[in-house]
Amino acid sequence: MMIHVIFLVVSLFSSAFCGELSDPSSIIKYPSEEPKRDDGDEVNLHCTSWRFAAETNNLASWSTIPAECADYVKDYVLGKAYVADLERVSEEASVFASTVDFSAGDGKDAWIFDIDETLLSNLPYYIDHGFGLELFDHSEFDKWVERGVAPAIAPSLKLYQRVVDLGYRVFLLTGRKESHRLVTVENLINAGFQNWDKLILRSPDEQHKMATLYKSEKRDEMVKEGFRLRGNSGDQWSDLLGSSMSQRSFKLANPMYYIP
Amino acid sequence: MMIHVIFLVVSLFSSAFCGELSDPSSIIKYPSEEPKRDDGDEVNLHCTSWRFAAETNNLASWSTIPAECADYVKDYVLGKAYVADLERVSEEASVFASTVDFSAGDGKDAWIFDIDETLLSNLPYYIDHGFGLELFDHSEFDKWVERGVAPAIAPSLKLYQRVVDLGYRVFLLTGRKESHRLVTVENLINAGFQNWDKLILRSPDEQHKMATLYKSEKRDEMVKEGFRLRGNSGDQWSDLLGSSMSQRSFKLANPMYYIP
Repeated sequence: MMIHVIFLVVSLFSSAFCGELSDPSSIIKYPSEEPKRDDGDEVNLHCTSWRFAAETNNLASWSTIPAECADYVKDYVLGKAYVADLERVSEEASVFASTVDFSAGDGKDAWIFDIDETLLSNLPYYIDHGFGLELFDHSEFDKWVERGVAPAIAPSLKLYQRVVDLGYRVFLLTGRKESHRLVTVENLINAGFQNWDKLILRSPDEQHKMATLYKSEKRDEMVKEGFRLRGNSGDQWSDLLGSSMSQRSFKLANPMYYIP
Repeated sequence: MMIHVIFLVVSLFSSAFCGELSDPSSIIKYPSEEPKRDDGDEVNLHCTSWRFAAETNNLASWSTIPAECADYVKDYVLGKAYVADLERVSEEASVFASTVDFSAGDGKDAWIFDIDETLLSNLPYYIDHGFGLELFDHSEFDKWVERGVAPAIAPSLKLYQRVVDLGYRVFLLTGRKESHRLVTVENLINAGFQNWDKLILRSPDEQHKMATLYKSEKRDEMVKEGFRLRGNSGDQWSDLLGSSMSQRSFKLANPMYYIP
C-alpha cells in the first residue's frame, strides 16, 4: 500500500519542482497509470463531483440536472445515501441546538426552518417529473402543493420536535405563496409539525424577489424584533446566505433543483 | 424499473398519511427491503455522508477525520475524485470570472485566493501525517511550510492565470504567519504563481484570531478601499463566510482538516 501511495504522489506532483513549469497543467493531473474504469464508474465520478459542486454552492444558477446524471440523482434520492445525509444534518443541528445557552430566559432564541425539501418532501412529485431532469413547471407543482399531501422528512421532524422542546421560537420561512397558507398549514399538521411561532409565506408583491433577498429581509425583521437567530435549516443556499445569517446554518441535501 | 421506483416510494412514505403519526421516525426510513450491502459499502456510504456534511459546513468544529474514514479520505485525495472536484470548481470560477462586467475600467474588481489547499497543495505533508487522522502539529507543519516546496494545485493555477489575465486585482489572503512571508513568496513563484497585488499574512497580534474574523476584517478593509470583491476561492468556509463576502464564493474540496 505504501508503495502505491508513493507511486501516486510521484505521479501527481513529480513535475512540480523539476525546474520545468512551462506546462503547469501537468502539476496535478489524472493519474493515467490507474486501470481504466468502466463507463458506470466514470459517470458516477462525474455526477458525484457535480453533486458536490451543487451542494457547496459552486455552480452557477441551474435549471435542470445534467442529463447524464438522471439515473445517479434518482438512485441517490431513492436510496440510502439521501436518508443518511438527512439524518446526519438533523443530528448535527440537534447537537448544536442543545448547546445554546438559554440562561437569558427571554424567549428570543429562534430557529428558522424552510419547508420544501426541508420539513416536507416533494419526492412523490419529483418521481413523476424526472428528479429534476424536467424544467420546473410552476402550474404542475402548484397542483401538487394544493393536494397538501407532502410527507414529512422524518429526520427533520425529529429535529423540529427537539428544537420546540428546547424552547426555541420556531419560524417557518418558505418561498411558497400566501395563497397556499391554508393547505400548507394543513399539510404541516398532518405530517406531524406543530407549535411553530410564525409561518412566513411570500406576499403577492414578493413573488418576483430573489429568494436570497426575500429570506434575508425576513431575517432582518426578526433580528430587528430582538430575536437571536441560532439555527437555520434549509435545502437551498438561498435559505441560508445573505444578511442576518443565523449563528449556524444547516444545509440539507437537494440535488434536484436550485433556487437562486 | 418503474415497479422498483413505486415500491421504494411506497416503502419510504406509506406511513405518512395513514392517520397514524405516533411514530414519525417511520415516515422516512432506510428501505429495509434492499439487499444488505457489505461492510465496505456501508463504510463508503457513511464516509461519503460525513464528507458531504464537512464540505457543506454542517459539522461542528472537528480536529481529526473519523478513524473509520481514514482509508476513504486517503483514496479520495489520492484518486480521481479530488482532482475532478478541483477541476470543476476551477472551471466554474473561471466561467464566472469571465462574465463580470469590467466596463468601469477602474481596476477595482478583485479576486481573493486562500493559499493552503487552494493554490498550494500540502498533500505531500498529509501523506506523511495520516491524511487528517493525526491531530494537527503546528511545529511539524511549520517545518514543512519552511521547506517551501508545496506544489501548485494545477486547476487553481489555471484559474489564477485566467483571473490575472482578465485584469482582476489579486489578493492572496492566508492564515500563514508573517514570518513565513519570504518562503511563501518563493514557494508561490516556484509553483508558477505571479503578479498578485497583495499577499496578506497574519501579523503576530492576529495569531489567535479565529480565521473567519481575521479574513472578514481583511475583506472589510478591501471593501473600504473601494474594491469590488467578485470572487473568493478557498478550501475552508472560514475563507469565505463572515462580513464583506464576495459576490461569488468558491469552496474547494478539503476533507483533511477544518479551520474555524
